[in-house]
Amino acid sequence: LKVNNQNPIGIFDSGFGGLTVMKEVAKLLPCENIIYIGDTARLPYGTKSAETVLQYSLEIADILYKKGCKLLIVACNTACSHSLEALSQLLSIPVIGVIQPGAELIQDKTRVAVLATSGTIRSGVYQNLIQSFAPNSTIYPVACPLFVPLIEEGYGETHAAYLIAESYLSSLKGKIDAALLGCTHYPLMRQTIQRVLGSEVHLIEPASACAEKAKKVLTQTGLLSTQEKPLYQFFATDDPEKFCRLGQSFFGAHLSHCEHLYL
Amino acid sequence: LKVNNQNPIGIFDSGFGGLTVMKEVAKLLPCENIIYIGDTARLPYGTKSAETVLQYSLEIADILYKKGCKLLIVACNTACSHSLEALSQLLSIPVIGVIQPGAELIQDKTRVAVLATSGTIRSGVYQNLIQSFAPNSTIYPVACPLFVPLIEEGYGETHAAYLIAESYLSSLKGKIDAALLGCTHYPLMRQTIQRVLGSEVHLIEPASACAEKAKKVLTQTGLLSTQEKPLYQFFATDDPEKFCRLGQSFFGAHLSHCEHLYL
Repeated sequence: LKVNNQNPIGIFDSGFGGLTVMKEVAKLLPCENIIYIGDTARLPYGTKSAETVLQYSLEIADILYKKGCKLLIVACNTACSHSLEALSQLLSIPVIGVIQPGAELIQDKTRVAVLATSGTIRSGVYQNLIQSFAPNSTIYPVACPLFVPLIEEGYGETHAAYLIAESYLSSLKGKIDAALLGCTHYPLMRQTIQRVLGSEVHLIEPASACAEKAKKVLTQTGLLSTQEKPLYQFFATDDPEKFCRLGQSFFGAHLSHCEHLYL
Repeated sequence: LKVNNQNPIGIFDSGFGGLTVMKEVAKLLPCENIIYIGDTARLPYGTKSAETVLQYSLEIADILYKKGCKLLIVACNTACSHSLEALSQLLSIPVIGVIQPGAELIQDKTRVAVLATSGTIRSGVYQNLIQSFAPNSTIYPVACPLFVPLIEEGYGETHAAYLIAESYLSSLKGKIDAALLGCTHYPLMRQTIQRVLGSEVHLIEPASACAEKAKKVLTQTGLLSTQEKPLYQFFATDDPEKFCRLGQSFFGAHLSHCEHLYL
């Protein structure tokens, strides 16, 4: 497939979380067309096996590739953990994820917690990358499997969420300088996480670093778009109306239209 | 396909919840071979659209049918809501669900809450069936979307779960005599639900009524098994090891083996 600089950027996630990444990409690169796919028929990815998430990611990425995307952003930490290497090898377009840009934000000698889904933590990808970028850091990986459903049901900033966050995170108190939000949903329960960890702990979100990386890659390959009115297309593998309704809080703006993508 | 009385009963669910039904079936019908499929690669069903759940249910039911099942039990309330009619029409074996046996337990003139997933509540199937069996009852349908993830993560009987249950159910206090647990997971947070609703509220679980119905159907069709050592086979569409680990608390006994079913 031939790509030129007017071709869209493709972004995918298991559902809604990747919209927090798209928001940063759209802000930093306001001339780019973007196609977003949320695999809402099979979400969540975070509790499923590496093998299954790899299969799902390859399917969705292939659809974006065939739609002519010039750059693929895997905007789901779990999908990155299990498929980024395979996708980079299989596709002839650049592929970037959220994990490496996030890991690069960790300064050396930091005591950092990595909060993510069970699948992301189990993969060890964050731990390995942070180790290579900041070899003298101390890493505390913590799986927080209930954060995604709590956020999707609008309970991210409730006392119930606080109690659950405390059960996951209380042992970190006093031990860490920073916590990396290693799931694209987690910015939506930032206040609860901050309250549990204490105000002195720096919360790190990879989304804007990922957007920076997208800009760098497009600049280097001469594929930056220059048009004035970018087109955003949203696809969901289940219930496009619900996607628009829930997606709004992740994207930070109204989603007027989403198409049903049948797998 | 030809069936005889040694053929297995097929049971399926989106994941683990249906094991609470299988437990009752195995207790009441200890001579029956049973094949159980948990669609763990695509769970949950409860938050997804009717169309998608129907498609998934037809796929899984077809696999059980082709394995020679003599009776199909749809042990997932959401799957029943969206696919029971279609399955009954498509398959040449008897198909039973958990909703009708549950609805038949409601005595007339009861003020009853139906607690279930968003999909089950939205379908209106419980409401319609209870209305027909107990026309003078008053029905309060309540979607409890966070109960399933809380239970699957082992948080069903915690204070956080209590707070979430309270946010769903507190408006029912003093208004109801009974609450029907319209999701096969919910028996695993029975104590929390009882505490929120008050000890005078009768909690109704459809699982044993479903097993009774299975016995009745097999008796009527002359298909009751008489063998002494029944075989139980478990299949999961993702992560069979996790299925065994989590399934134990639902089945109430150790699950020694589960096979990966590739879709």
